[in-house]
Amino acid sequence: MPLPPHPKAVLIDLAGVLHVGDEAVPGAVSALQRLQASGIALRYLTNTSRTPRATIVGKLRRMGFAIEESEVFTAPMAAVEYLRAHGLAPHWLVHPDIVPELGPSAMQPTAVVLGDAAHFFTFESLNTAFRFVMRGLPLIAVAKNRYFKEPDGLTLDMGAFVIGLEFSSGVTATIVGKPAPDYFNGVLAQLGIAAGEAVMIGDDLTDDIGGAQAVGIAGMLVRTGKFRPQDEHDERVQPAAIVDDFEAAVRALLDD
Amino acid sequence: MPLPPHPKAVLIDLAGVLHVGDEAVPGAVSALQRLQASGIALRYLTNTSRTPRATIVGKLRRMGFAIEESEVFTAPMAAVEYLRAHGLAPHWLVHPDIVPELGPSAMQPTAVVLGDAAHFFTFESLNTAFRFVMRGLPLIAVAKNRYFKEPDGLTLDMGAFVIGLEFSSGVTATIVGKPAPDYFNGVLAQLGIAAGEAVMIGDDLTDDIGGAQAVGIAGMLVRTGKFRPQDEHDERVQPAAIVDDFEAAVRALLDD
Repeated sequence: MPLPPHPKAVLIDLAGVLHVGDEAVPGAVSALQRLQASGIALRYLTNTSRTPRATIVGKLRRMGFAIEESEVFTAPMAAVEYLRAHGLAPHWLVHPDIVPELGPSAMQPTAVVLGDAAHFFTFESLNTAFRFVMRGLPLIAVAKNRYFKEPDGLTLDMGAFVIGLEFSSGVTATIVGKPAPDYFNGVLAQLGIAAGEAVMIGDDLTDDIGGAQAVGIAGMLVRTGKFRPQDEHDERVQPAAIVDDFEAAVRALLDD
Repeated sequence: MPLPPHPKAVLIDLAGVLHVGDEAVPGAVSALQRLQASGIALRYLTNTSRTPRATIVGKLRRMGFAIEESEVFTAPMAAVEYLRAHGLAPHWLVHPDIVPELGPSAMQPTAVVLGDAAHFFTFESLNTAFRFVMRGLPLIAVAKNRYFKEPDGLTLDMGAFVIGLEFSSGVTATIVGKPAPDYFNGVLAQLGIAAGEAVMIGDDLTDDIGGAQAVGIAGMLVRTGKFRPQDEHDERVQPAAIVDDFEAAVRALLDD
């Protein structure tokens, strides 16, 4: 899949692309300023469900990224939209920090929804979710990522817990964040553009690049964050471009 | 696979067959007495790794089952044997109650071994195991069961956590308990009998019956414990016999 010569929108993953942990990726702040000055529409796509959107934006601003809350698409936002569209009442297994933006669990839930509860994934909370699913409630997960990079090393992402519940219950989870086609199509619809007019920049070969390219958005893989050398030679997903980092991605998009 | 007309040994799963939680299955105590009186060799096969063997036997004795410790095969025993045979030093992620019978984790581990840590499966303990596996240590698990039945409902078993680590790390775990062929063959070797001379009685279609029958031991599925009606019509595993409970299994074996 070729990169569009003049994209109308650039979709940008956050963790591993603009920053790793609390540190901006070198060159990313000024590169984003250049991209913003170009007038191309920008959207930030994150599967993070440990922190509310306002906190995510505040953290990015402190690193020097001038990002607006309205430009950020989080996977929990996609979950809320999914529940609304299907008339479902949630039992949330999520990080307590995002409960204020989601609301409480229903007294009589009709769906189990997993976010990245992180340290709140306990045997007890997982077993409660398991029992609801065994009673017939559908299982919904904001994401199924395998791991991500923190300053002290690769860290288990929520996908481990989603697939564990799937295995024990025999029920397949509906994923509403990346790489779900609905998630990417929702962003395109909001921007009012076609898939071929957008580019996705990410560090996750499967969820960022594979997900975007499955709906026709060209993907640029960066060699930062969770990138691993074997990602360059994966038969399942071949990115439109592979670049060293976000700065190189912006250079490739603007200086052609 | 037909039942042997005169089996030399009967292998018996514990939870869900002889007892559910702290209660003996109705009729199981007297049925086991009849089976013991018949002179057929008996072995108790359990994947439980939440409790040491002495505690398992003590609990069964309090319910009225006259079982000897030497007749019980636990999955952690198979793990210790596997580590010895392969010269590996373990990082244990197990229930603290069984640490005394396993010994402590190695300072410089060369393998990660999971037992059913139950409430000690925390994000922290799983992430530590994940990081060892990502550094190249093999992943070993005593079992990969999906769930089991407790008095208050179906409960998540350790398989959920094993498969979660497999998913996030991309590494496949070696299973040393049921349904591993080595586990069943180890029991046959200790008894000095052939597979066709033994019968396995269990409530888990995949791990008890499927595992036993894969090495040539006829399996009798009981309709107690984690048994579910759809188990009677599973295309992957067809038990040699399906009976209501342990008492009916003993009747079928002795009164033919």
